[in-house]
Amino acid sequence: MSPPATDARVSVVQTVPEFGAVESNRRATVAAIEAHTDSDLVVLPELATSGYVFESHEEVDAVAEPVDGPTAAAWAAAAAETDTWVVGGFPERDGDATYNSSLIVSPGGVEGVYRKVQLWNDEKRWFDPGSQVPTFETPFGVLGVQICNDLWFPELTVTQARAGVDVVAVPTNWVPEPETRPAGWTMGVHQAVANANSNRVFVACADRAGTERGVRFEGQSVVVDPDGIPIAGPLPDAGSHAVTGECDLRRAREKALTERDHVLADRRPSVYDAE
Amino acid sequence: MSPPATDARVSVVQTVPEFGAVESNRRATVAAIEAHTDSDLVVLPELATSGYVFESHEEVDAVAEPVDGPTAAAWAAAAAETDTWVVGGFPERDGDATYNSSLIVSPGGVEGVYRKVQLWNDEKRWFDPGSQVPTFETPFGVLGVQICNDLWFPELTVTQARAGVDVVAVPTNWVPEPETRPAGWTMGVHQAVANANSNRVFVACADRAGTERGVRFEGQSVVVDPDGIPIAGPLPDAGSHAVTGECDLRRAREKALTERDHVLADRRPSVYDAE
Repeated sequence: MSPPATDARVSVVQTVPEFGAVESNRRATVAAIEAHTDSDLVVLPELATSGYVFESHEEVDAVAEPVDGPTAAAWAAAAAETDTWVVGGFPERDGDATYNSSLIVSPGGVEGVYRKVQLWNDEKRWFDPGSQVPTFETPFGVLGVQICNDLWFPELTVTQARAGVDVVAVPTNWVPEPETRPAGWTMGVHQAVANANSNRVFVACADRAGTERGVRFEGQSVVVDPDGIPIAGPLPDAGSHAVTGECDLRRAREKALTERDHVLADRRPSVYDAE
Repeated sequence: MSPPATDARVSVVQTVPEFGAVESNRRATVAAIEAHTDSDLVVLPELATSGYVFESHEEVDAVAEPVDGPTAAAWAAAAAETDTWVVGGFPERDGDATYNSSLIVSPGGVEGVYRKVQLWNDEKRWFDPGSQVPTFETPFGVLGVQICNDLWFPELTVTQARAGVDVVAVPTNWVPEPETRPAGWTMGVHQAVANANSNRVFVACADRAGTERGVRFEGQSVVVDPDGIPIAGPLPDAGSHAVTGECDLRRAREKALTERDHVLADRRPSVYDAE
């Protein structure tokens, strides 16, 4: 049995981290959480504490933290203070392994971690891939997490919808791939729209902005509803911003589109090549 | 071994069928094929010969045809005359079964049929679902077909990309679901963009336009490239139009995005819930 779904205020926070400046980056994320006392869920970008463009294992080692490290402590304190849930990205150290992870934090403390399943490009040099798609029961509904490139593998959102997820929080670091923006949107927004629409879930993407070591990040953080409609954002492509979507998560439980159509029951796995 | 992929001119033809007027609807599709003597592939809408909004089995029976019926003959003649391939939708009768099908026709004749896998709403009253995802080897590359609602089940495009498909022809009858058009696009265009981009295939959608028995169709026919960028269209939402995309189908063979990223090899089926 899933917990009930309710109204939820879902905020996506777009930041401009400074590479390697963990203390100040973390302070910025804590300030952003503290600015959202009315939110039920605050989503922060991928690798929000560290920046993204690593050039050596030593650089990763210098900023990676365990799931009970100082970032977890800081976000847990802010989540308790504001009575919000927080999903945010950080480089995780676990013994010999390193992950591109997101912490899931409730007002009661750290609830768990999601480790990016579909790593992108140089991340494969620095990080081990995750292999779990956990769900988190919150007071407002069931929460799932993806990170950036995960959104390009639509099987993941299908997997989450089938597991009862109502809202997918997506810490991300979108890059211009491709450079062109059809209809004005970076491709991640299109992927969020398509995934939300075809699975009838909310998708809340918190992207970073700014340019780091020559790599430009796309901003355009956005909250998309189960129809596939952006209800908050996309935010501007540059600068630090935040926006909140008023999400009735009960809508994500309505998988019937008509009396004859159901986005999950209508799937035909015996026809698909899933291997 | 797949056949080589080459440059291809892919045309999407947007028509406004009149319900039940098979002869004149068919004439319009033949005229459209004949107007595209420079095209390698002409895509026509879903149920282009019959119209869409059936209200009884008798109405379907009155317009359904076998795969070697008069529509097949007419399209085969036009395909031979213009030296093009044609993919177009028609209601198929096969013994006791009825399908929402697309014919695949080459200059040499009928190559096969695709029967819509993911039927929508009242179609489930009139049609049996298809259960095959065939591929067609053409002189310009490997062709696959989807029909309308199929695009909302992204596992199908993954299935086709894994089978070597370079271009997905999509006869469609998009309806305003949802009514809102994010960024100005009906949701089918967003789905085409997302599916093309995440599988690196061309997606060519030929939609109908017009209002039939109170149901408005969306137009916006479009050809999307493997980056997810519309290279022809979206066409206007009303009226009969056609547009041609210059498609280098070799691009659909390049599944590597970087030296470390490959849209097919990077999939993690053991992590997804595919059942």
